[in-house]
Amino acid sequence: MLDFDFYNPTRIVFGKDRLVELDTLVPKGAKVLVLYGGGSVERFGTLEKVTSALKEREVVTFGGIEPNPKYTTLMKAVEVVKAEKIDFLLAVGGGSVMDGTKFVSLASGFEGNPEELLACGFNPVPVEKALPLGTVVTLPATGSEMNSGGVISHNKGKFPVFSPLSFPVFSILDPTLTATLPPTQVANGIVDTFIHTVEQYVTYPVSAGFQDRTAEGILQTLIEVGEKTLADPDDYDARANLVWCATMALNGLIGAGVPQDWTTHMIGHELTAMFGIDHGKTLAVLQPSIWTLRKEQKRGKLLQYAERVWGITEGDEESRIDEAIGRTRAFFESLGIRTRLSDYGVTEDKIDDVVKALEAHGMVALSETGDVTPEVSRRILAHALHGA
Amino acid sequence: MLDFDFYNPTRIVFGKDRLVELDTLVPKGAKVLVLYGGGSVERFGTLEKVTSALKEREVVTFGGIEPNPKYTTLMKAVEVVKAEKIDFLLAVGGGSVMDGTKFVSLASGFEGNPEELLACGFNPVPVEKALPLGTVVTLPATGSEMNSGGVISHNKGKFPVFSPLSFPVFSILDPTLTATLPPTQVANGIVDTFIHTVEQYVTYPVSAGFQDRTAEGILQTLIEVGEKTLADPDDYDARANLVWCATMALNGLIGAGVPQDWTTHMIGHELTAMFGIDHGKTLAVLQPSIWTLRKEQKRGKLLQYAERVWGITEGDEESRIDEAIGRTRAFFESLGIRTRLSDYGVTEDKIDDVVKALEAHGMVALSETGDVTPEVSRRILAHALHGA
Repeated sequence: MLDFDFYNPTRIVFGKDRLVELDTLVPKGAKVLVLYGGGSVERFGTLEKVTSALKEREVVTFGGIEPNPKYTTLMKAVEVVKAEKIDFLLAVGGGSVMDGTKFVSLASGFEGNPEELLACGFNPVPVEKALPLGTVVTLPATGSEMNSGGVISHNKGKFPVFSPLSFPVFSILDPTLTATLPPTQVANGIVDTFIHTVEQYVTYPVSAGFQDRTAEGILQTLIEVGEKTLADPDDYDARANLVWCATMALNGLIGAGVPQDWTTHMIGHELTAMFGIDHGKTLAVLQPSIWTLRKEQKRGKLLQYAERVWGITEGDEESRIDEAIGRTRAFFESLGIRTRLSDYGVTEDKIDDVVKALEAHGMVALSETGDVTPEVSRRILAHALHGA
Repeated sequence: MLDFDFYNPTRIVFGKDRLVELDTLVPKGAKVLVLYGGGSVERFGTLEKVTSALKEREVVTFGGIEPNPKYTTLMKAVEVVKAEKIDFLLAVGGGSVMDGTKFVSLASGFEGNPEELLACGFNPVPVEKALPLGTVVTLPATGSEMNSGGVISHNKGKFPVFSPLSFPVFSILDPTLTATLPPTQVANGIVDTFIHTVEQYVTYPVSAGFQDRTAEGILQTLIEVGEKTLADPDDYDARANLVWCATMALNGLIGAGVPQDWTTHMIGHELTAMFGIDHGKTLAVLQPSIWTLRKEQKRGKLLQYAERVWGITEGDEESRIDEAIGRTRAFFESLGIRTRLSDYGVTEDKIDDVVKALEAHGMVALSETGDVTPEVSRRILAHALHGA
C-alpha cells in the first residue's frame, strides 16, 4: 500500500424528502446564492422546494450554468456574489453546477486574476479564503458533492480546479430528485462513476486490499443496478445505490494509497471540448481501447478485474482480459451508450487535432506511470475510432 | 437503503515514518498532554519520537491508561488538563488510550458531574465544548482513530460515550508502529475488526449494495491477511491492510444506511467487565452462538455472507449457514483465539450474573430489531459455553 492522506469533511444527508433540512444546514441569517443549470430544477419544482426550505433567509438565484460549465458564465455569478454580498452558495444540480459553484466560491475570495485559477493543474489553487457552499444533488455522476475539485471549461479547454477550501459543507442526496432525469444523463452518470472507479483501480497492484475490494464493490453494484435504474427510475433502491456509488467513487476513499490513472478522463476532456460529446460517452469510447493497448502495463489488475468483477476464470490470461474488456463494452452499450468514436461522427483526420490539444494542455505524460505520451494517446484515439 | 447522515472530519495520515508530521498537525504554540497506556510506547521509543516531533511545544505526559480505561484514571488526567492549562490532547496507543482521551476531552469542558457522561447510552453526551485531540495509533482494532465514540469502564460496567465534538482532528496510522505488539493483541484486533464489520452487515437485507460489498471486502481482506500478519509482523503490506481495515470497519462508512446489531459487543462488554476476558475474545466466543441461535432472523444475510465471503454455494440453506459459522469459528481459532466461554474458565452457574448485569445496564432489547431480550441473551450465553 502506498502512503496517503485522507480528509473529507463533507456532511452527507441521504434519503427521501430531506430538502427541508436545509433550514438547519445553512447558517441562520446567511444571504444565499442558489446556483443551478437549465430549467429542469424549476420545471420539476426542486428550486421552489429549496427556496421554501431556506425560509426567511434572503435568497438570490443564478441559473444557466451549462454542462461543462464555462469560466465566463461563472464569472457572472462571481459578480452577483460581490454585488449582493452573498454569504453562502447552494448548488442545485449535477456535476457541472457543483463544479461551477466551487469555482465561484474560490474566485469570489481570490485577489488576483481568476483565470490564473485554471492554470494550477492537479495542484491546489492559491486561494486563502472561499465562500462556504452546500449542494443538492439532482444527477448522480461526478462525485463532486463529496470532493474538493471541479472541472471548468474555458477557450476550448477543460481545466481541473482543486482546493481543500472547496469541499461542500454538506450535500443533500435525495435519490427521488433524480427520477425525472432523461435516461441518457443517467446512463452517462453510470459510465462516469464506473470510469472514476477503474481509473483508481485498474493500474498496478500495490496490495491494497480494502481499496481494491471497495472499488470492485462499486463496479459490481453499478453492473447490478445499471439497467434496472434506467428501466425504472422510480425503483428507489436501484437509484439510491447509483447515487451512493457515484459519491463513493470519487471522494478520495478508493484512491487513497493506490496508484491512479486519469488517462481516460484527460483524453475524454479534449473530445468533449472539441466535438461536444457528452463526458460520460467520451469515457465509454476510450476505456476499452486504453485497456486493449495497455494490457502489458495493467496485466495484473486487468486479470483481477476480470475475475472479481466479471467472474471470468477460464481461459488463458489474454483471453480473460479480452473477455473482461468485451464485457465492459457490452455493459456500456446495454445502457444505450455507443462505444466507438466513429459513432459520434469523429473521423480519422481529426485525431491529430486532439493530440495537439493534449500537448497544448500539458497532457503529455498521462497514466499511473506517466508513460502515455502524445504518441500513445494517438494510438488510443485511432483504436477508439472503430474499437479495434 | 435506509436514510442516513454521514460525517467524518478526521484527517488520516497513513504510512511509514510520518510521526515527524506532528509538527504541522498540532497547532503551533499548543500546550500538549500526551496520553498513553503501559510502558510499551516508552520501551519501543514511540513516546520519545512523539515528543521530539512536537519540537518546542510544552509537553506534559500522562501514562497508565489501562485496557478498558477507567473513569477514575481518566478523571486524574482531567485534573492534569485543568492544572496545566492544556490546549491539545494527543493519544498514543490503541483503542483504550484513544477512547480514554476522548473522554478526557469531553469531561474537561463539562460543567456538570462527569459521571453523568456515562449515562447517555447511544445518545451524544450533553457537552458544548471539548478539547481538540489527535491520535497516534499503535494497535489496530477499535477504529477509535476515526470515529467520535469511546467505551469507558466504571463500577464493573462499560459505558459508551459519543459526541460529534470528539472526532480526532487527525490520526497518524503508521503500520510499523504496530510491529512490536504481542500476537495476542494483534489477534484480538483482527477479531474486533471482523465483528465490528459483521455487526453492521449480518442483519437483514436493505439493498445497500455499496455498504454490503464494502463490508464483505473488509472481511475478505482480514481473512487474507490475518494469519500472515501474525506470522510476520514485519510484512508491511499485511499489517497496513489490517490497520486500514480496522479504521474503515468503524468510521461510519459501512454502517451508513443499513441496520446495525450490537448484540455481540454489548454482551461481550459484560463478559469483560465481569471476568476480565479480553474484548476481542469475548466477541469470538459470542458471535458463532448468536448466529446459530438467530439463523431465522438473519437468514438472508447469513446466506449472502456464506456465499460472498466464504464462497459457499453448495448444499441447502441450513448447511451453507452452518458451514459459514464453522468457517468463522475456525478463522478465529487459526489466530490463536479460543471460541468457547468455557475456554476462559466461565461456568454455567455464572450466566445468571451476566444476564443480571445486562438488565442492570439497560441491555434488554438488543439486536437490529430489538428482539434480543435478557432471556435470549441467556440462551446465547448458554450456547457459547461449549459452542454447541
